[in-house]
Amino acid sequence: MLNKLFTKLDGYYEEMVSIRRYLHQHPELSFKEYQTAKLIQSFYEELNIEVKGNVGGNGVVAKIYGKKPGKTVALRADFDALPIQDEKEVPYKSLVPGVMHACGHDGHTATLLILAKALNELKEDLEGNYVFFHQHAEEYAPGGALSMIEDGCLDGVDVIFGTHLWASEPTGTIQYRTGPIMAAADRFEIEIQGQGGHGAQPHKTKDAIITASQLVLNLQQIVSRKVNPVDSAVVTVGSFTAQNAFNVIADKAKLVGTVRTFKEDLRDFIEEEMERVIQGTCHMASSSYEFNFVRGYPAVVNHETETEFLKLCAESVPEVQYIEETEPQMGGEDFAYYLQKVPGTFFYTGAKPLGVDTAAPHHHPKFDINEKAMLIAAKTLGTAAIQIHISE
Amino acid sequence: MLNKLFTKLDGYYEEMVSIRRYLHQHPELSFKEYQTAKLIQSFYEELNIEVKGNVGGNGVVAKIYGKKPGKTVALRADFDALPIQDEKEVPYKSLVPGVMHACGHDGHTATLLILAKALNELKEDLEGNYVFFHQHAEEYAPGGALSMIEDGCLDGVDVIFGTHLWASEPTGTIQYRTGPIMAAADRFEIEIQGQGGHGAQPHKTKDAIITASQLVLNLQQIVSRKVNPVDSAVVTVGSFTAQNAFNVIADKAKLVGTVRTFKEDLRDFIEEEMERVIQGTCHMASSSYEFNFVRGYPAVVNHETETEFLKLCAESVPEVQYIEETEPQMGGEDFAYYLQKVPGTFFYTGAKPLGVDTAAPHHHPKFDINEKAMLIAAKTLGTAAIQIHISE
Amino acid sequence: MLNKLFTKLDGYYEEMVSIRRYLHQHPELSFKEYQTAKLIQSFYEELNIEVKGNVGGNGVVAKIYGKKPGKTVALRADFDALPIQDEKEVPYKSLVPGVMHACGHDGHTATLLILAKALNELKEDLEGNYVFFHQHAEEYAPGGALSMIEDGCLDGVDVIFGTHLWASEPTGTIQYRTGPIMAAADRFEIEIQGQGGHGAQPHKTKDAIITASQLVLNLQQIVSRKVNPVDSAVVTVGSFTAQNAFNVIADKAKLVGTVRTFKEDLRDFIEEEMERVIQGTCHMASSSYEFNFVRGYPAVVNHETETEFLKLCAESVPEVQYIEETEPQMGGEDFAYYLQKVPGTFFYTGAKPLGVDTAAPHHHPKFDINEKAMLIAAKTLGTAAIQIHISE
Amino acid sequence: MLNKLFTKLDGYYEEMVSIRRYLHQHPELSFKEYQTAKLIQSFYEELNIEVKGNVGGNGVVAKIYGKKPGKTVALRADFDALPIQDEKEVPYKSLVPGVMHACGHDGHTATLLILAKALNELKEDLEGNYVFFHQHAEEYAPGGALSMIEDGCLDGVDVIFGTHLWASEPTGTIQYRTGPIMAAADRFEIEIQGQGGHGAQPHKTKDAIITASQLVLNLQQIVSRKVNPVDSAVVTVGSFTAQNAFNVIADKAKLVGTVRTFKEDLRDFIEEEMERVIQGTCHMASSSYEFNFVRGYPAVVNHETETEFLKLCAESVPEVQYIEETEPQMGGEDFAYYLQKVPGTFFYTGAKPLGVDTAAPHHHPKFDINEKAMLIAAKTLGTAAIQIHISE
Repeated sequence: MLNKLFTKLDGYYEEMVSIRRYLHQHPELSFKEYQTAKLIQSFYEELNIEVKGNVGGNGVVAKIYGKKPGKTVALRADFDALPIQDEKEVPYKSLVPGVMHACGHDGHTATLLILAKALNELKEDLEGNYVFFHQHAEEYAPGGALSMIEDGCLDGVDVIFGTHLWASEPTGTIQYRTGPIMAAADRFEIEIQGQGGHGAQPHKTKDAIITASQLVLNLQQIVSRKVNPVDSAVVTVGSFTAQNAFNVIADKAKLVGTVRTFKEDLRDFIEEEMERVIQGTCHMASSSYEFNFVRGYPAVVNHETETEFLKLCAESVPEVQYIEETEPQMGGEDFAYYLQKVPGTFFYTGAKPLGVDTAAPHHHPKFDINEKAMLIAAKTLGTAAIQIHISE
Repeated sequence: MLNKLFTKLDGYYEEMVSIRRYLHQHPELSFKEYQTAKLIQSFYEELNIEVKGNVGGNGVVAKIYGKKPGKTVALRADFDALPIQDEKEVPYKSLVPGVMHACGHDGHTATLLILAKALNELKEDLEGNYVFFHQHAEEYAPGGALSMIEDGCLDGVDVIFGTHLWASEPTGTIQYRTGPIMAAADRFEIEIQGQGGHGAQPHKTKDAIITASQLVLNLQQIVSRKVNPVDSAVVTVGSFTAQNAFNVIADKAKLVGTVRTFKEDLRDFIEEEMERVIQGTCHMASSSYEFNFVRGYPAVVNHETETEFLKLCAESVPEVQYIEETEPQMGGEDFAYYLQKVPGTFFYTGAKPLGVDTAAPHHHPKFDINEKAMLIAAKTLGTAAIQIHISE
Repeated sequence: MLNKLFTKLDGYYEEMVSIRRYLHQHPELSFKEYQTAKLIQSFYEELNIEVKGNVGGNGVVAKIYGKKPGKTVALRADFDALPIQDEKEVPYKSLVPGVMHACGHDGHTATLLILAKALNELKEDLEGNYVFFHQHAEEYAPGGALSMIEDGCLDGVDVIFGTHLWASEPTGTIQYRTGPIMAAADRFEIEIQGQGGHGAQPHKTKDAIITASQLVLNLQQIVSRKVNPVDSAVVTVGSFTAQNAFNVIADKAKLVGTVRTFKEDLRDFIEEEMERVIQGTCHMASSSYEFNFVRGYPAVVNHETETEFLKLCAESVPEVQYIEETEPQMGGEDFAYYLQKVPGTFFYTGAKPLGVDTAAPHHHPKFDINEKAMLIAAKTLGTAAIQIHISE
Repeated sequence: MLNKLFTKLDGYYEEMVSIRRYLHQHPELSFKEYQTAKLIQSFYEELNIEVKGNVGGNGVVAKIYGKKPGKTVALRADFDALPIQDEKEVPYKSLVPGVMHACGHDGHTATLLILAKALNELKEDLEGNYVFFHQHAEEYAPGGALSMIEDGCLDGVDVIFGTHLWASEPTGTIQYRTGPIMAAADRFEIEIQGQGGHGAQPHKTKDAIITASQLVLNLQQIVSRKVNPVDSAVVTVGSFTAQNAFNVIADKAKLVGTVRTFKEDLRDFIEEEMERVIQGTCHMASSSYEFNFVRGYPAVVNHETETEFLKLCAESVPEVQYIEETEPQMGGEDFAYYLQKVPGTFFYTGAKPLGVDTAAPHHHPKFDINEKAMLIAAKTLGTAAIQIHISE
């Protein structure tokens, strides 16, 4: 079975590349991926595969039924692009000014479409059901996953797999991890309201720059003293603004930043501790504040059984040369929401472009992938999808 | 003699008011006070008083010679306006949009012109010489005083007096002080150069917001621990800018602020200590910095003999009801430069408008003065100018 | 084979308890465990097992040779006690005032002695060689492990296992972990030398309390900003001393504390960063410092293969009901040194006393164990020792 | 009259020296100056001057009545010594181990006794009344002044003068100042109650050293940002104690320090601000605190008329070569209490020993004075006492 699948995928590689390049030239921003969704839907319709559009927004969900009954396995690819100007010199460079597939979602989409096509041709030999999630808006909170789930995409699904093409790792690498693999990414804003005045008369003011500076430092103590050292947490103030004339004392200061964690209860804990630190710091200065803590995606937490299973599957793929446990990343992904509902795992597929020492990082204007990695991703996901019925 | 002078001044009060109001309607910004300078120069020319224009810029200097030889006494009035929109509802409201005499320099000028006119009429009875400094650009460093001095205005001058109409104090008040009466006002800029990065990866960065926040707080220790507690000093960071996306770590942060002191050697000391604190703080973070410390006006330091003398003179003026020692002000004035060269004193003439509890502060869009205060200023300065020859 | 071993161990349980209780009544402090060492050595001599005393100090090493050749497996138990007054009310309470087995090393020793006795009786059926490390001075750096290794105890050893009776976990639990399971525990001292003076004259001093307070806070930034958030690190200042009269400014302040990490290169990194932070902070104050960073035990880093193997072995032990992966502990253990030289694993054997909700913690005056846990420890270690020859 | 007084004083100089040296050899600690009080009382009794002992403790008050009625003028000298070991090599070195007149109070006493003797001999020529305050316990709060006042020593007194022999200034110098000349000296204690624990587990604790370190720094902001820059204030934490083992997190930390100010309302203000800063800092850490702010002596605030008058008197004394305005000192003196009740002034009499560049400072084991300064002090005080009746 796997050999049949691999042969089919090899045969469709050229088509896979051509789809990816077309998408690369025609990127669309999160929540505005209308044409891309249409393209995906048409692809399935032409193959007479059951497909549904407008799932929770621009999401598209297709389904193949194997001959024998069995589990329903979902595979997911996201398809939105980023507000970045493509600076690569390649024939398939983005044709849309200021918009670019700088995170590989074009590759994810091409991978999943071709995998679905191949599985569809083998369906007489397959057990169980195969669902293909083409998800919009991964790049922009609140993301597309949540609304697709609310729209029922997970109904009847037993297990889910997803991958990210990962340009920093050599092609031929599969990276897995049980438990947290990507962090919860929250955002906060703090506005300090002191009392301004003349720079020469501090005693008549409540200096908001002093208070905000204390706050920047006091917040760090949460990470170093309040969080269990074996857990991971980051509190970053990324922006500090209090722009005034040189001879003035600031009445206001605004801090904006992010909190990253892997455990759900740490998010609550840090939010509470932040409020306490802000209260105390402002109390000292008789100043007031506004504090907004906005939840982003939760942590992507892989399930143990499915992760161990995926590892074994990766060993069956001829092109896979390295299977490595990865350290968790502090970045975020809304694949997290699927894993809160059904078992599954999210893994990285190495996609470093040929002939470069260090790949341009994700979200960089020169980002690119080694397209061969799409084939590896398709084979690994396909193996998992087929083998899951046997592994029981 | 004083009675004669006072009678003359009383007689010219209406003219004084009318000059002040004309100037109030036609304000000109620092270094651009061309018409005002012309008006002043014409005034003296029409009276056949020796006058010289373009002294160190737009400055005007007039001179009257008494019959008997004696000291040369200088009196100074500044005549530039501010970039503020006049928001008063009065017939003499500024006719120039966005420009306004919001600090009383129009009154200073009218005071000095009429005083010169009166003294000129009495010159047959006077000893010594009388020089009138009409100084441009007091509001904007490097100011007009320094260039007028460089252009020779102080040559042959033995003693100098100046006053500021002071709207916060009741009309009828003269405030004096031996030693420092207004502060040195310096300006600094600090730019921290760290290393930016993703908000989730602090270990790959040198967080400029952390470093700048530490700096804001560390600089305060200079005031509270390094400066002699019986001296006065202020270090204010008025502006803190490091504006970035929420999920970014800042590579740069810029601090701008002011230092206020009364003693010349404290300026050097604080500049040195600031450099040391910046060095140490940046060293911790392996970050670099640029530090600019720009000297503004030095402190206005009144001479003891002349201040005691002025106090006595104020007692001779019938309208003066309160003679008070004032606390030093942390604001700046380039009268400071004259006092570094010749003995003299700078004092405040109360000018609170009639019928208000709290006057609009200087530099406020609704600033105004009680015009009667000009008469008091003229009489006090005139008394000092005449009596100085007798006081020896 | 395993059944034979388990039956023998069950039969010797009473002896095991009686050895443990004797040791509990006769505890000896680290590096002074002369009688305990003698008792251990005699035990082996009476059984005609090859034994060597004074290994790297008070260490004792015994060896059993199986009939067939094979690997040499080492098992380790530590035997020193703590300077704590026993406050339990039990018949086997410590007879030595102020000294107590408050960490279970008495149990470790009884476990290993009886296991050796049982294996010795089975030696005709065994492959390979069995080495028993009775290690002194685990509680007090530099510990006994290092000197025993230098004295050759690891020569010819292929693999090592060790366990700690763990009173906080239910009896019947085995906790394992691949990679770091206990932290490196380093110690530092910082002495700030400022310049003292009268409390009313800060400007004539270099206030060591200010500098040390800044340092306490600045050091925390290493943990929150300089260490990779997915790694664990603690920097604790446990002691701050600068005792003076109220109206004095401190010339000196002393900070003492600990650093905990799991990765060897993090120890170097944190030591370097601490030096940089101290330098910068003292530079600001024109003060000097002395900084001592004293390495304690390195992290206990378990090897993957042996840990996976141990997990399987634990499944063979009938009394084992829970086999759990544990989070790393920030405490230290000199078992770390053995694992730097040979593969192996260190695990926890649950030993919560019967009928308590929360056990008294290790190093507590009321610490005790469930003695049944010794049997579980002996069976798990014994299984590992026997099976290791088969697992190849 | 003055000449007569000066001649008498010159004649008694030797006796003055001998009294001072006797006292120097027989120093007594604050509140324990029994023998010294006895000596003083006997001196007056032998001269048949009205004298009263045990005034508010060990205080002694003598009184001389001039022939004509007039004001009652009080002169004050303190007579307690310090717990310091005399390290000078002089014939009059202290005979009491660990106790020493290291602040010149022996000289003050000799000065006042001889001045009283001389005035007594001139009483037929004098107007008004002369009261001599020999005050105990100036060195140790709550001091002797307050209880002497409560015991009625100021009843009927119109004006008071006092001086301090000042070893840092050249003999021949009189230093005066209108307004504050010595600071209010308050004392505070802050105890932070956090929650201790193991040095490796900060998340289970409330680290009192962190909180106390933040507090040390936050308190400084009161001085640099909350107090008017033209006022003087010092907040010094002189003692920081939290002594623990290196691997422990502190549950408690204690800060002890002093606050110095010149204005009564600043004392209240700083106490309030301190409480606010402590509240805020502890709130952040969920820790609690105890805060004690203990008032010491208030500021010594000289009255203007009496200070101007004293200046004139000093000009009459032949040995006085320099009359200088002094900067306020941040040290404290309980002469403050007298000046809160009656007008008067406190001044410094230069007393630098012959032939030294820099005198040993007050409270130093090698402290000494130039005894000629006592004569100058006696003449200046005497002049003030006599002339005050004429000055009206």
